[in-house]
Amino acid sequence: MNSAEQADSTGVPAPDALDWMDEIDRAGDRLAPYLPPTPLIVSRHLSAVLQRPVWLKLESVQPVGAFKVRPAFNSILAHLQLSREAGVVTNSSGNFAQAVAYAASTLGVDSTIVMMRSASAFKRERTRRFGGNVVLCEDSFASRFETTERIRRDSGRLLVHPFDSTETIAGDGTLGRELLAQIDGDFCLFVPISGGGLIAGTALAVKAARPGCRILGAQAVANPSMKRSLEHGQRMRTVPTKSMADALTVPEPGMNTFPIVQTLVDDVHLVSEARMVSTIRDLVLQDKQVVEAGAAVSVAAALEHAPTDGSDLPIVCVLSGGNIDPAALSSILCPIQ
Amino acid sequence: MNSAEQADSTGVPAPDALDWMDEIDRAGDRLAPYLPPTPLIVSRHLSAVLQRPVWLKLESVQPVGAFKVRPAFNSILAHLQLSREAGVVTNSSGNFAQAVAYAASTLGVDSTIVMMRSASAFKRERTRRFGGNVVLCEDSFASRFETTERIRRDSGRLLVHPFDSTETIAGDGTLGRELLAQIDGDFCLFVPISGGGLIAGTALAVKAARPGCRILGAQAVANPSMKRSLEHGQRMRTVPTKSMADALTVPEPGMNTFPIVQTLVDDVHLVSEARMVSTIRDLVLQDKQVVEAGAAVSVAAALEHAPTDGSDLPIVCVLSGGNIDPAALSSILCPIQ
Repeated sequence: MNSAEQADSTGVPAPDALDWMDEIDRAGDRLAPYLPPTPLIVSRHLSAVLQRPVWLKLESVQPVGAFKVRPAFNSILAHLQLSREAGVVTNSSGNFAQAVAYAASTLGVDSTIVMMRSASAFKRERTRRFGGNVVLCEDSFASRFETTERIRRDSGRLLVHPFDSTETIAGDGTLGRELLAQIDGDFCLFVPISGGGLIAGTALAVKAARPGCRILGAQAVANPSMKRSLEHGQRMRTVPTKSMADALTVPEPGMNTFPIVQTLVDDVHLVSEARMVSTIRDLVLQDKQVVEAGAAVSVAAALEHAPTDGSDLPIVCVLSGGNIDPAALSSILCPIQ
Repeated sequence: MNSAEQADSTGVPAPDALDWMDEIDRAGDRLAPYLPPTPLIVSRHLSAVLQRPVWLKLESVQPVGAFKVRPAFNSILAHLQLSREAGVVTNSSGNFAQAVAYAASTLGVDSTIVMMRSASAFKRERTRRFGGNVVLCEDSFASRFETTERIRRDSGRLLVHPFDSTETIAGDGTLGRELLAQIDGDFCLFVPISGGGLIAGTALAVKAARPGCRILGAQAVANPSMKRSLEHGQRMRTVPTKSMADALTVPEPGMNTFPIVQTLVDDVHLVSEARMVSTIRDLVLQDKQVVEAGAAVSVAAALEHAPTDGSDLPIVCVLSGGNIDPAALSSILCPIQ
């Protein structure tokens, strides 16, 4: 664990503590003025394929095009005065960068975002457009967190953790609360995993209210960090290989997200690059929704594993983000013969 | 006016008659078990450009990807026994074809759909997939309606009119009713126009409840049938030129839709092909929504005309359909340099 994680991960309560529900409630109250609930739409095409209702949760229509505005707003609003006085700093592969830039601008806060040189040019440009000061670092997670920590120490800025703080996990948990208001009864929820913040927060909210729900994670074959960690019963560090899913790059589960996932998540499935491509194409052509590869993994995992899952619960797939590069989407829609 | 229109357009009440509200109420009750309300999402990007809230009404996420399921279900459900006994017949450039095929299959009704040979292969294929028997006709509106009328006479099938019957207009009107439940206060509504069914039905519902709302139509420059008809104070027939907006091909307003539009619609704007392209691209990249050109005209018209409209009401744009050909979308996203 590196120092940036340490600085931010103290005092996170255990997954079974009731405090989480308070945290998620508070996060919901904080976000309400800024983020209306995202739509939950039925996919006729997926429902026909899987022979049961399949719903899509459109986090892709959030401002900045990803669920990351939930943890970004919650993290800044929880410490608004400090954020306004000192500014904030974070690091991200792209979507959290945009989300912090957007939330900070909206709330009158100055933001510095550390991104790897290899981060999608599309996402770097969007981060700048949303008002973030982008600082580039070397292409490693160590460099990303070290650069962030250096800026934090030198500037006194508030560190906003991309996936492993109480505020982040609780902010993510508001998605689970929203789902409970949108769908009756138990359901089977497929959630993309990178550091594990989204699935941890969502699982906390959903399982507390409806323990009969199933929570399934989805990762790229190229970066099976949570899958391997669960298999080994401890946090494992992977060496991710190249993947279209540029939002799912964290090589090791969070110190705080991991035990929550261990306790509450039923299974994690791995998705191939080819499946991401066909799923993105189907979501565009059948469901008229633009998603990035890191979001398509939830639907791809449902398509591949729901039939043998042993449950016939309705399915909800979280479309966690829509920031796909236009050239990539173009080639998926019309591959060169 | 041709015989197919005549056969279907008798007894339509005047636009100011109260019966329309009853018709739209009845349509809403009929559709409720089959079509949940479509989402209304805010577009941050368009709101920033136009300096006021801009909402998108996602008819593109309807089954078959277009609002046309509203009039299709209403038309068949209003005469369900006859439809089941005799089957139905209609004609369409594509989206109504798919909608009737889908509604008929859902309701256990046999459907025959007359489409021009030049209709998008993508939409023909989808119509077949939804269970419709596709009959191809020559590339003219006369041939489309004549072929339909011949089949109707020979087979006794129920004629389902694509845009100009009471059932169609009332079915379309359910969109207006839905909007009134989703947004408070007056708003400025931009609606694509082909035969005029959608804007007529929607205007009836919206203006009856909130006369302060503004209703604006949008057509392709390539087919300004309603615009010219309003200018001349009578239904004018155009000779449409080639356009990306293959859903907006009707060359003359409906006998019934025209007087409603004359009475209730504030203005109609024309949209160039270039504007359709840039709008489709922005909706994909900024709003993560896939739309066809015939839907993008509502947003394009808002972008071009809202700033000088003399009103600062919030804006609602109807994204009426999402059935864009994948190759066309691909080239819009990544044009060959």
